[in-house]
Amino acid sequence: MKLLEERIQKDGTVKEGNILKVDSFLNHQMDVELFDLMGQEFKRLFADAPINKILTIEASGIGIACVAARSFHVPVVFAKKTQTLNIDGQVLSSKVDSFTHKKTYDIIVSKKFLTQQDHVLIIDDFLANGCAVLGLMDLIRAAGAVLEGVGIAVEKGFQTGGQKLRDMGIHLESLAIVDSMDAATGRITFREQPHQS
Amino acid sequence: MKLLEERIQKDGTVKEGNILKVDSFLNHQMDVELFDLMGQEFKRLFADAPINKILTIEASGIGIACVAARSFHVPVVFAKKTQTLNIDGQVLSSKVDSFTHKKTYDIIVSKKFLTQQDHVLIIDDFLANGCAVLGLMDLIRAAGAVLEGVGIAVEKGFQTGGQKLRDMGIHLESLAIVDSMDAATGRITFREQPHQS
Repeated sequence: MKLLEERIQKDGTVKEGNILKVDSFLNHQMDVELFDLMGQEFKRLFADAPINKILTIEASGIGIACVAARSFHVPVVFAKKTQTLNIDGQVLSSKVDSFTHKKTYDIIVSKKFLTQQDHVLIIDDFLANGCAVLGLMDLIRAAGAVLEGVGIAVEKGFQTGGQKLRDMGIHLESLAIVDSMDAATGRITFREQPHQS
Repeated sequence: MKLLEERIQKDGTVKEGNILKVDSFLNHQMDVELFDLMGQEFKRLFADAPINKILTIEASGIGIACVAARSFHVPVVFAKKTQTLNIDGQVLSSKVDSFTHKKTYDIIVSKKFLTQQDHVLIIDDFLANGCAVLGLMDLIRAAGAVLEGVGIAVEKGFQTGGQKLRDMGIHLESLAIVDSMDAATGRITFREQPHQS
């Protein structure tokens, strides 16, 4: 999505250690009018899928997912991160290794809100090593629901998550794929995606 | 807001200990089309205020804030909850006592995204004892920003938060105010708010 790539180039900051800061418009301060256009693009890219629910994970996925859901006319469910040990039988749970925070946490969703009837689109702000998405896929599998696809705002194409998901045959759409970035010059190279707007 | 009251009566669950569960449409699974109507009602109720930013707190406030922001055409900033001790000079921080989780946590917002230029509407899903809102007000004060008002989805009118904020002269609009509820019958009594739709 050219508009998002341009915004990342303009307002994103590249830091040493392959860190891309997009907190002025994507995941701390949030440009909701941009999210609306991203939601419309997700709807176009997943137009053929019988999606009846969007699944995301707290916290920074929620805004994008909720605004995108307006284009799909479906509810959003967000997985909660928790470190509580006493997870009861009312929830589906999985474990996620956080690369950023160097720890493992549990993610949970109430069984009431993810069931065999659901055809699910996962939406999240970032895809790097893919651990969060794989954890959400675990929940979908445990619920007996169907994964229809994964929609990501920014994929770090030089990390392994995207390739893993594509190798599994999953319909993954990342609105911007960063193939490389240079902290010294601030230059960001995006992967060509001719089928996207 | 009659529509929200009806939805709470229909899909909310009252549990012992004055617990109101609205997780099927408000704060775990989220009915985004309802959020859209809530956003329009907030816009009507705060029509005269020169709001240029919405501030909320992770996680369950984010969805409502982002969808409401479409009616205001302003960005959203969410305060992050953290238990990290090394808060640096780049952020504004405050402490919040969580009644639900029986602990105190820090909330932070980057100084870049809350400044003297900002006229802020706080939005959150629940108002009970008011600690989260008071914490967000601390951040606004520290930034030198102006608080224009507080928009809440569900206020527990029998707890002290709403009264505290109104006594401070703050323009508070809660789309539904629960004055009492009965776990045995499931009956919920809402406060009359003739100025709301």
